[in-house]
Parts: sequence; structure tokens; C-alpha cells
Amino acid sequence: MKKILIGIDLGGTNIKLGCFDQDLKLMQKSSVTTGADMGPDVVVDRIISGIGDLAGRNNFALDDIVAAGIGTPGPADYKGGIIINSTNMPTFKNVPIRRMLSDHLHCPVAFDNDGNVACYGEFKVGAGKDVDDMVFFTLGTGIGCGIVSKGQLIQGVGGNGAEVGHMIVDPNGESCNCGQQGCVEAIASAYHTGRRAQNAVAAGQASSLQQVLEEQGEVTCKDVYTHLAQGDALAQRITQETHRALAIMCINMLHVTEPARFVFAGGMIAAGDVLLNGIRAQFDELIWTLKPETVEIVFASLGEDAGVYGAAALGRNEIE
Amino acid sequence: MKKILIGIDLGGTNIKLGCFDQDLKLMQKSSVTTGADMGPDVVVDRIISGIGDLAGRNNFALDDIVAAGIGTPGPADYKGGIIINSTNMPTFKNVPIRRMLSDHLHCPVAFDNDGNVACYGEFKVGAGKDVDDMVFFTLGTGIGCGIVSKGQLIQGVGGNGAEVGHMIVDPNGESCNCGQQGCVEAIASAYHTGRRAQNAVAAGQASSLQQVLEEQGEVTCKDVYTHLAQGDALAQRITQETHRALAIMCINMLHVTEPARFVFAGGMIAAGDVLLNGIRAQFDELIWTLKPETVEIVFASLGEDAGVYGAAALGRNEIE
Repeated sequence: MKKILIGIDLGGTNIKLGCFDQDLKLMQKSSVTTGADMGPDVVVDRIISGIGDLAGRNNFALDDIVAAGIGTPGPADYKGGIIINSTNMPTFKNVPIRRMLSDHLHCPVAFDNDGNVACYGEFKVGAGKDVDDMVFFTLGTGIGCGIVSKGQLIQGVGGNGAEVGHMIVDPNGESCNCGQQGCVEAIASAYHTGRRAQNAVAAGQASSLQQVLEEQGEVTCKDVYTHLAQGDALAQRITQETHRALAIMCINMLHVTEPARFVFAGGMIAAGDVLLNGIRAQFDELIWTLKPETVEIVFASLGEDAGVYGAAALGRNEIE
Repeated sequence: MKKILIGIDLGGTNIKLGCFDQDLKLMQKSSVTTGADMGPDVVVDRIISGIGDLAGRNNFALDDIVAAGIGTPGPADYKGGIIINSTNMPTFKNVPIRRMLSDHLHCPVAFDNDGNVACYGEFKVGAGKDVDDMVFFTLGTGIGCGIVSKGQLIQGVGGNGAEVGHMIVDPNGESCNCGQQGCVEAIASAYHTGRRAQNAVAAGQASSLQQVLEEQGEVTCKDVYTHLAQGDALAQRITQETHRALAIMCINMLHVTEPARFVFAGGMIAAGDVLLNGIRAQFDELIWTLKPETVEIVFASLGEDAGVYGAAALGRNEIE
């Protein structure tokens, strides 16, 4: 009998799936639309038929699946296996997602938030595979996070730890959607980096981004980095604020879990070295002088696949 | 043969010692002056004779000691067992303290920073004994810290994690001795709470603490809380800033390790309920609204003994 692992990355728009062998070698991956508006039963059916499709194409039976894992955006009752509420999937109310999947797959199913799951994927086979202690950040609409300490994910007593995007780094800063003020996410995510530039331009600050706002009706993070490369002073100030907030987040995490490596992922890393160098420069400027710090700051290496890798790896932990 | 555990809490002024049975029941404790100015060999001799004294009075032989643990202020090379530098013990340079002790005691010796060690003591037998996830803070000259996640101390890749006193909570805040700006310790430790009040009084701000400064030549944290109780407006503002910084520290840690309980220790907790209630009020005001948070904020219960308990417990881990 083959022993197959399944990784599921459940997002509001797409479900990503992957089937793996016991050594976490990816056999094949696929993606289907979530169809969240049709409710949780339809979504679970799509997951199960997607897995069936992978099985047919890779010559294994559903009985060969020994474990699976699924990641979803938090917060949720990860210990209980229940999606209580989901901003991206409004039809999901108190959905016992873990039980629904294990009923269909007849195997243990790991359930964790998408930040932890992607982090674990990078830890097991990506940018963190050679260290035991890392902190992972996804820079997108918000800032997702995962933390590995001594080889273990830090999940917290209710499974809602590692939400470092909501670390307060400026108590007089702007309001965050979460209800707090000055969260690092509200300053330095891809979305908020674009938004801050857009607001500054809309308020009349001189910038080559003025034309972008007029033509597109918005300024994105990508625009900001493009105009930074062209020497725009506003783009420079905005990205410096972003890098500074991300550097403080890293400094604070160094003083909490002291990782060997910070790993950055998400759409915003397309900005390239200017982003990493910017964070590193601010980190070196702001960090304590009690002892030299050698923590690495790098990009993730698995891209969109980190979630399915991590979910499958967490599934495997359930049977080991 | 008896099986005895030894806990050692090595401070710049005093060495605290405790002998314990295998169930971590304290048989007897003692304290000797450190004599750090006479160098590490003398200090180790004092530790060993102190243990010999405990042995004589409690009817066990040095051979009955199966494990020991020692806590010292950080940073140090905790993995390597070496005190590289010590601000409180300037004669200690590259002292292989763990090996020196194990050579004398012929048993495994655990070595960790004093914050972790005291945290572990509270976790095993004090205010955290019924939870698996806690964060511990000592409010003194600085802010010491220890973190337990899923029953394990978070030590970090170099053993210098859990230095949450140096979390930056106000990037425009005052300089900290560590070289950073806006560390929570530089605002909210006992020392800095007194110092901020003293500076405000010296700058001419109206306060009943004016008389204290004139009579004592300084304003301490204790004075600030005494005058808070008497309705002084400056004391109210200073303590509110302290409680606010401590609350942000707790909020940020909730988003990192999500503990079930925050445990506060150190001289400053003599302020009593006004301190806990102040932190709780600011926590409730500043925390996110995505979901209700039920984390507890309490005082430590072991007082000065937390260090020897924790050191002995960490020693026991070495042989389990």
C-alpha cells in the first residue's frame, strides 16, 4: 500500500491542493475555485473531488491517504477544529472543518492557520530547512506569521498565537482593522504601504505617483517600489517607514524567540533586494548594542506552494 | 541513596541556594554574599561550600546530588555554559561556570538566564503551575522575562530569547541602556518609573513628590505608588504611562505566544492591585476586538525563591 499525504490550502478565492509521498516529495498540485458563497458542504465536496482527481492522475486510492492537513486564515478554533467565522468566507459559521474532512478521508487531519502552515512548509522544505528556529512573515493585504522554536510551531493556548502582524509598534500610529492602534500590519503590509502612499498623494504631496493615482485611481505597493527605483522622494519616505516598522517587528521577535532566520514571503517580496536591504539597514541601526546579532533576513523559497507543503507536513506529524 | 536536586541563583550581590527532593520539595534554602570582586574561583568555592553546608544540615552527601541548575543575568553563552561578560560581576570574563560546577558536583548542571529560571520556578510550583503557556515578567531595575510555551521554556537559538524587556513599544521613546530607543524597560521598570517621576519633578512639574525629592535626593517607584494612593496627579500620569507600556507588552506577547497567563514578579509588585488593575484596564482598552481575550494577569507567588526552584527544576530536566 502506498502512503500518501495531502496538503490543503483553503483561501477565500482558491483551494490549493497537493499530494505528497511520505518524504514530503510533491507528486502533483492543483487548484480549484473555492465557491465559498455556496456554503461549506460544497467547499468540502470540491476539496474531496480535487483530491480524487489527484488520486486518479497519480495512481493512488483514497485509502492510500494516511494523513492530511489544512490551513485557513485565522482566527478560528484550531484546537477544536472549527471555523467559527471567516471574513473571506462569510457562509462559514461554526463549521467543523477538520471532522468533515476526516469523515471523508478516514485519516487524521491537521488544522492550523495559513500563516503557521506556510511557515511550516518553508521550515520543512524551503528557506528554513537547515535551521531549528525561524520566524516567517507573509506581506500581503495584512501580515501573516508563523514561528518555529526548537523545531516546533508556536501555536498558543487557543491556537491563535503567531499573529505578529498585530504587534503594536507605534502606540500613536494609525488604526488597524483589528481594533488596535499602530499594528505593524497597518503600516507595513503591501496593502497599507500602497495605501499610505496613495493618501499622501491624494493629500497633495509632490510625487511622480500623482500620475499613477490619476490614471489607475489607486496606488499599489508595487507602484511605490517602482517609483522608488525611479528616485521619487515620497516613495522613498513611504518605503523607509515600511522597512522601519518591519525592522522593529524583527527586533522585537529577536528578543522573544531569538530565531536564526527571518523569512519573508508574500506578493510584496517581488520588490526584491531593496526590501531586504531596507529592513536590514533599519534593523542594524535600531538593534541593541549589548552583543552583535547575526540573525539572517531572507526571502521564502516555495512561493505559493508553501501552504500545501506545510499542511502535508503537519498532517504527517499527526501519525508520527 | 537519596536523590537531591540543587538550585543556584547567582546574583551580583548574593548567591541563593536551595536543596530539594526529587519532587521539587524545598528541604532548605540559604544565602551567601557573592564576593564577585574576588573572582570566579572564589564565587564557585562559596557556592560549593554553601551546598556542603546545606548537605550537612540536611543529612545528605555531595554524592547524593543528582542534578543542579544555576541562573545568572544575561546575556551569556547559555548553550556553551559560559559567562562571557557580566555587568554585575565585572571580574567574570569567559568563565565556564557550568563545567566548573559540574566538576565539583559530578552531576549535570543546567544553566540559563535568571529570568528564564525564575519563570520556570513559577511555572513548576508557583503562579503558573496549572497552565502550559505563560509569560513571566520581573519588574525591577530592568524587566526580566521568561516564556513557557507548551510546557517548554523558549530559549532561542543562542539562549538569549525571552528578553522582552527590550521589546520596542515606542519607537520615539527614550534611549535604553541597551542601545535601543523606546524599550518597554526604559519606560516601565521599577527603576524607570521612579526615574521618570523624578525627572518630571526636577523639571518643575507640580507634585507632592517634590518634597520626597528634596528630602531623599531621589524619587523611587515605591514613592510614586505611595503618592498615587494620596491622589497626586503627576504620580497618576507616570503610573498610567507605566501601565500602558506594560499592557502593550502583554498585548504584543499575546499575539506571539498566546499564553493563558501573564505572571508579574519583582519588587514593584508590592504596589499591589493598583498595578494589576492598571495594566488590565489598559490591556482591555488597547487589545483588538476580533475576538474576546481571557488571558489572566496575576502576580507571582514564590517571591525570592522562584530562582532556586526553577534552577533545581531545570537541573531535574537534565536527568529525565
